[in-house]
Amino acid sequence: MMNNPKPSLPVIKRLPKYYRYLKTLRASGVTSISSRELASQMGTTASQVRQDFNCFGDVNGRQGIGYSVDTLLDMLEKLLFGNGDRLTAILIGAGRLGKAVSRFITTDTNGYKLIAAFDSSPAEIGKTISGIQIRSVDELEAFCRASHPQVAVLCLPREGAQEVSGRLMNLGIEGFWNFSHYDLSVAFPHAIVENVHLGDSLMSLGYQMRNQEQ
Amino acid sequence: MMNNPKPSLPVIKRLPKYYRYLKTLRASGVTSISSRELASQMGTTASQVRQDFNCFGDVNGRQGIGYSVDTLLDMLEKLLFGNGDRLTAILIGAGRLGKAVSRFITTDTNGYKLIAAFDSSPAEIGKTISGIQIRSVDELEAFCRASHPQVAVLCLPREGAQEVSGRLMNLGIEGFWNFSHYDLSVAFPHAIVENVHLGDSLMSLGYQMRNQEQ
Repeated sequence: MMNNPKPSLPVIKRLPKYYRYLKTLRASGVTSISSRELASQMGTTASQVRQDFNCFGDVNGRQGIGYSVDTLLDMLEKLLFGNGDRLTAILIGAGRLGKAVSRFITTDTNGYKLIAAFDSSPAEIGKTISGIQIRSVDELEAFCRASHPQVAVLCLPREGAQEVSGRLMNLGIEGFWNFSHYDLSVAFPHAIVENVHLGDSLMSLGYQMRNQEQ
Repeated sequence: MMNNPKPSLPVIKRLPKYYRYLKTLRASGVTSISSRELASQMGTTASQVRQDFNCFGDVNGRQGIGYSVDTLLDMLEKLLFGNGDRLTAILIGAGRLGKAVSRFITTDTNGYKLIAAFDSSPAEIGKTISGIQIRSVDELEAFCRASHPQVAVLCLPREGAQEVSGRLMNLGIEGFWNFSHYDLSVAFPHAIVENVHLGDSLMSLGYQMRNQEQ
């Protein structure tokens, strides 16, 4: 892959979508697809599809036949899931959102393994979430030193996230799935962060609803 | 605002973040801020901040003083929340994710009002979610014809979302907060859609974790 352009963040963000589409295609018996067909199904352009795939190895569509669905899926699986080892994740904040989110972490197909959940509320500690007993956040240091989780999922308010993220960085956590309004990337530019700002998403939908072209 | 450039989607997506930052600043007593300071706190550049604000009305920072925090917040509130009327929303799919998500809809500060929730599971129908009784999805047509909701929140699997979104479009729903893997925008290019693909977000975090520069 030495000579391929380095994929930009927008390209990286499109990979799961390609992966989902191609899996659906394979499940319905499709073995090859042109960049044009794939683009029209994904709401993008053929040239973008070709450029995106060009960032990763030697996948070339064949004139008149298109890309092999199997070849593309093999490539995407290697990129998204590596050798198949799941990334170990811990959940911080086991409230209503944390409970809903834990289901996405424990779904095997996403490539993660939830190994612990933490909360500060005595009402939650000791309860079970996705088959895992919720621990006190006071146990965070001891747990991380023993088990070296790779990813932390932050489902707690801004203030809590700000406090806990420094602790997590010190404990060697490299990746964050961040649902809080605390912008980790400003304080920790080297952290790998995926932000899911549900409130922001609702507000920008609201903007588009309220400022439609008449 | 006639001569301002039309804001692009990335600009629109940054508005809630500006709004959150500026509210925090006002709460801590800050009355003015330079584009440089605001940019550094938001992890962007001063020139982007100025360009973004330039899309909306006549907000000009004053040399040596900066932008008035109150003026910016007034502008952002008008853009994001209009005259203060909340958008009426219905939730389709009242499972674990729908329950967590309903809290974001009912939080007043996001500008929405949840007026109904629907599910197809007899186990959920009749239960209460965020103070609202869950209805059978069979009642969708009757409810929408009577109450004209503006936004639908889709918290159901791909197949269900595909089936229900055509019905919702026919019923005059204009906006979708879409948690399903069904890409509405392909079939309905005029719908206003905010997608939240939690599985995709986890997978692209996984890609970044597994393909770090050494």
